[in-house]
Amino acid sequence: MAVEISTGKLRGLVRLADDAGRFKMMAIDQRGSLQQSLGRVLNKDPLAVGYEEIARVKGAITRVLAPHATAVLMDPIFGYPESVHDVPRAVGVLLAYEETGYDKAGPTGRERLTRLIEGWSVEKASGAGADAVKLLLYYHPDASEETRASQQELVSAVGAECCEFDIPFVLELVAYPLAEGGTDTPEFARHKADLVQRSAAEFSKPEYGVDILKLEFPADLRYAREYCSGAFDGKDRPAQYSVDQVLAVCQTLDDVCGLPWVILSAGVGIREFLAQLELAVEAGASGFLCGRAIWKDAVTYYPDEGAMERHLAEDGAYNFLRANAAAERALPWFAHRRFGGWANIAVAGRSPLWYREYGEPPALLTVEEETITATSPR
Amino acid sequence: MAVEISTGKLRGLVRLADDAGRFKMMAIDQRGSLQQSLGRVLNKDPLAVGYEEIARVKGAITRVLAPHATAVLMDPIFGYPESVHDVPRAVGVLLAYEETGYDKAGPTGRERLTRLIEGWSVEKASGAGADAVKLLLYYHPDASEETRASQQELVSAVGAECCEFDIPFVLELVAYPLAEGGTDTPEFARHKADLVQRSAAEFSKPEYGVDILKLEFPADLRYAREYCSGAFDGKDRPAQYSVDQVLAVCQTLDDVCGLPWVILSAGVGIREFLAQLELAVEAGASGFLCGRAIWKDAVTYYPDEGAMERHLAEDGAYNFLRANAAAERALPWFAHRRFGGWANIAVAGRSPLWYREYGEPPALLTVEEETITATSPR
Repeated sequence: MAVEISTGKLRGLVRLADDAGRFKMMAIDQRGSLQQSLGRVLNKDPLAVGYEEIARVKGAITRVLAPHATAVLMDPIFGYPESVHDVPRAVGVLLAYEETGYDKAGPTGRERLTRLIEGWSVEKASGAGADAVKLLLYYHPDASEETRASQQELVSAVGAECCEFDIPFVLELVAYPLAEGGTDTPEFARHKADLVQRSAAEFSKPEYGVDILKLEFPADLRYAREYCSGAFDGKDRPAQYSVDQVLAVCQTLDDVCGLPWVILSAGVGIREFLAQLELAVEAGASGFLCGRAIWKDAVTYYPDEGAMERHLAEDGAYNFLRANAAAERALPWFAHRRFGGWANIAVAGRSPLWYREYGEPPALLTVEEETITATSPR
Repeated sequence: MAVEISTGKLRGLVRLADDAGRFKMMAIDQRGSLQQSLGRVLNKDPLAVGYEEIARVKGAITRVLAPHATAVLMDPIFGYPESVHDVPRAVGVLLAYEETGYDKAGPTGRERLTRLIEGWSVEKASGAGADAVKLLLYYHPDASEETRASQQELVSAVGAECCEFDIPFVLELVAYPLAEGGTDTPEFARHKADLVQRSAAEFSKPEYGVDILKLEFPADLRYAREYCSGAFDGKDRPAQYSVDQVLAVCQTLDDVCGLPWVILSAGVGIREFLAQLELAVEAGASGFLCGRAIWKDAVTYYPDEGAMERHLAEDGAYNFLRANAAAERALPWFAHRRFGGWANIAVAGRSPLWYREYGEPPALLTVEEETITATSPR
């Protein structure tokens, strides 16, 4: 049976991926983490790093690397208004909707709540020229009922906004530890599969209105037997699983994902990211949306902008080409079972009256139709 | 001084043109004229040509030729909902806003009034994924005051709508004779320069909110000394001017155009169109938005869809390649004196507060600021 998709979402998804439907996307929407990096490099308080400096670094990265991407994820504060003119015509634009960081919550204060950027909206993103909206959500499936409900409601609200303005919704899920100890521990490495899989399953439900999931790699390769002797960072760690077991974890993730998914790089180095990407793609991912793994080393050259740009043009572009090559076997988004192949996709409401009915509420509402109305483009 | 442009309009214009800023666009938004052609081919009343048949012909043309275009102009009735999936990711989309044909008006009944498609809007076009809105306006600068005012008001209204939803506005101007005799006369051939130039000058005024003008060729090359012995259609006509004089007419048109402009083909054959395009480009046009000159011969093969597609893939693509080659010397849109070059363009409202202020009405309105508000994106 044909899967219906509205024209705005269809054009948006087509623009984010390459001609074959594979996502090779770059993230340059970092705010807090980039401020921290620049603080280190400039040897000053991250909060004292100025708007202009952040905007200039983002600008250089966008200018040099966007031509290698099928789409770039930008933020509407330091990024888009300062760099929109450096995005080539064929490269799509995603705009971030969440405020950087999180609010502490829950009984222990270790739970995380996401806030939207105040004064920004899906309506603004769509009007300003974005092809998709992205929301980063901190999520732990074992957080308190209150925290989970709050985070779920936020996703539903953004999902409804994206349906109203008929623009694709990319949801990024980031797990965190509820216990002490951080993320570089054998316990968290073992637990990660469960966290990523259960969160992905939750937000694959149609009521959230998500189109693409942006997911963490569901294991920690630094704790895989084949890589745990310091393959990526020179540090030994106790093996928790084999690469074959990690591949099986990725395959289970693919099984529970009801939507096309891409992986993020979460600040790992390029070699580790390429190893993750290869496994994710083998398991059925539709590509990547990756930032720091590609460009983070270049930032260390700031404020020598010439040296930074040279590093981007050489190492950054080389990193990008290798990631693109690894994504060349990714599952085209429309080949995901959610869609069942390009030929199976139909324009929602396609008829001689489409132009009249597009975005209009149905003339007569019954109780059952109300659900449909709430998620149809206006 | 920098020229400010809002992000939605900027991204839209960038998408319509090639990387160098040259427009190589295809029109497939014909309705009335295509219905007529299909009526002739099928030997039936044009009004009896069905929705499905028109949609299939448009679909074939879009599928085969859109990959050669930097953007395609489609209609939201028979075209976009049926063919959106055949527009490649890097090809922009313009959607037509006017109802096909015109209403007769004026003291003699020879004047023309444009109507918008009922039930369609700029808001819908933008949400549905369009990169620009196009309005075809019949206009005669010597029509009655009432007709001119009505047509001017329509353009102003659409211009304001396009500003509100921050999407480029392409205005197509089509002249018509006020006297009897039609357009294939020495009188009309001589008069055309004046009509096209005065109309282009009028709608270049900033109060209309137009971004790009789509103009008729301002002379009739069939009446040029060098071509009047049947060069294009085998028919002799009395010479009215030389090609050098026609080039001078194009240069005057460029002088009075306050906006980047492209030429349309108005159903002429491909050789005549290529001759027009070369002159227009030499005078400063930014490319073309051309339909029938490229694909009209293929329609005569309908309902043999295989033969039609073969003709499109061979002759249609060949026509397109030649038009693209002729446009290779077109003036990039941002090099037009309206913008003063790429480096001279600035994002409107660019500041650390852009994301808050974008599309919002100013907090305090003075009488002078009201004009600005009316044309700033919401």
